[in-house]
Amino acid sequence: MKPPERPLRIAEIFGPTIQGEGALIGQPTVFVRAGGCDYRCSWCDSMHAVDSAYRDSWAAMDAAQVWARVRELSGGRPLTVSISGGNPAIQDFGPLIAMGRAEGYAFALETQGSIARDWFAQLSVLVLSPKPPSSGERPDWAAFDACLAAGQGAGAVVLKIVVFDDADYAWARAVADRYPGLDLVLQPGNPEVDPDLPVAAQDVADRLLWLVDKVMAEGWFRPRLLPQLHVLLWGNKRGV
Amino acid sequence: MKPPERPLRIAEIFGPTIQGEGALIGQPTVFVRAGGCDYRCSWCDSMHAVDSAYRDSWAAMDAAQVWARVRELSGGRPLTVSISGGNPAIQDFGPLIAMGRAEGYAFALETQGSIARDWFAQLSVLVLSPKPPSSGERPDWAAFDACLAAGQGAGAVVLKIVVFDDADYAWARAVADRYPGLDLVLQPGNPEVDPDLPVAAQDVADRLLWLVDKVMAEGWFRPRLLPQLHVLLWGNKRGV
Repeated sequence: MKPPERPLRIAEIFGPTIQGEGALIGQPTVFVRAGGCDYRCSWCDSMHAVDSAYRDSWAAMDAAQVWARVRELSGGRPLTVSISGGNPAIQDFGPLIAMGRAEGYAFALETQGSIARDWFAQLSVLVLSPKPPSSGERPDWAAFDACLAAGQGAGAVVLKIVVFDDADYAWARAVADRYPGLDLVLQPGNPEVDPDLPVAAQDVADRLLWLVDKVMAEGWFRPRLLPQLHVLLWGNKRGV
Repeated sequence: MKPPERPLRIAEIFGPTIQGEGALIGQPTVFVRAGGCDYRCSWCDSMHAVDSAYRDSWAAMDAAQVWARVRELSGGRPLTVSISGGNPAIQDFGPLIAMGRAEGYAFALETQGSIARDWFAQLSVLVLSPKPPSSGERPDWAAFDACLAAGQGAGAVVLKIVVFDDADYAWARAVADRYPGLDLVLQPGNPEVDPDLPVAAQDVADRLLWLVDKVMAEGWFRPRLLPQLHVLLWGNKRGV
């Protein structure tokens, strides 16, 4: 007998808005942000979906309830749903993805790559974002490789690395060399993570400029270099 | 007997830098900007490659000379070369593209779609950017369709439309509906085109926000909505 489905812990569902970062930058999407994470990155910009102190704010919803909300927000018009977190791979999003795909929706998911799931193969885009030294976390590469393997059936697998400083950058180059076949996006880190404080657009520009200068000076032409558009547009405000 | 090759008129060759807009946003590239255009868009941000008054500043170079410069700038490391203008389709970039492809480089080209070329099929990305009403120009759709046909062998064909106002937006939706199979990027217009004046990063953000709000309010999930990153980073400064 199949065990009863455990409810999902959902920090927020919002949109439609545009995907602010990574390979799908600029693409209309609805976000499903999962609550809970196995990491505690020093500069985490989504602590409300990570820290247990926020646990009471996470909704317990089964997949059908989440799906109903996504369909409501998108007016029943298929688009790409972005599952983020926290680390969404902690939970079982397979049933949600199956429901959405049956109605023509696509799913992208971002995870640090610490937990592999067989339903990664049902994604249109799997974004693996191993955390650099400045995070204070250390990737488990065997787990990461298992995520890669699980994502083989996905439409695309993208390696996305956040870079805060020179040490992160050197690390990103080494990791990229380790996975030569993956699409690669580098994103400057955002040290301003207080949702109640504004972020100057010029700061977003300056951080990208720093990264562009660094990568071009080395003549490293593999990575795409992209900012966080949502921070440019809305700072760290939630729900947009 | 094959006629002698006519030299190319080149307004500027610069890079490596990142592609600031469109489908390849964030990707390292060297730009080859062709001199000369069959359009005179009211808000043109590249008049130095369009207006005959700048003609004396355009270099007459044969394809081998252009290629030597691109190779020098990129240190011989293959990347995507972006051919822009003006309208680069006025001239014959076929020989340049052949030289570069032989060394592992890829080529993207942006044109308004007024002149079709058989070498469009050699591009990795053909960006067709028909000009909206605010430009003061009116597309010749038969010519545009010929460009589409010529680009069938290209890696990808992308429809990119600049939107300055509500009339442009309505026009963009109609044009997009006419070409349902193409990838679509909408880009807010940039009315600040003086290369000697700074552009506030917040202005770039505000214009994108306007477009995001408009598209999301309609529940139109097809287009990607992207800013001009180079304007965010460098204003309208040339050569970056």
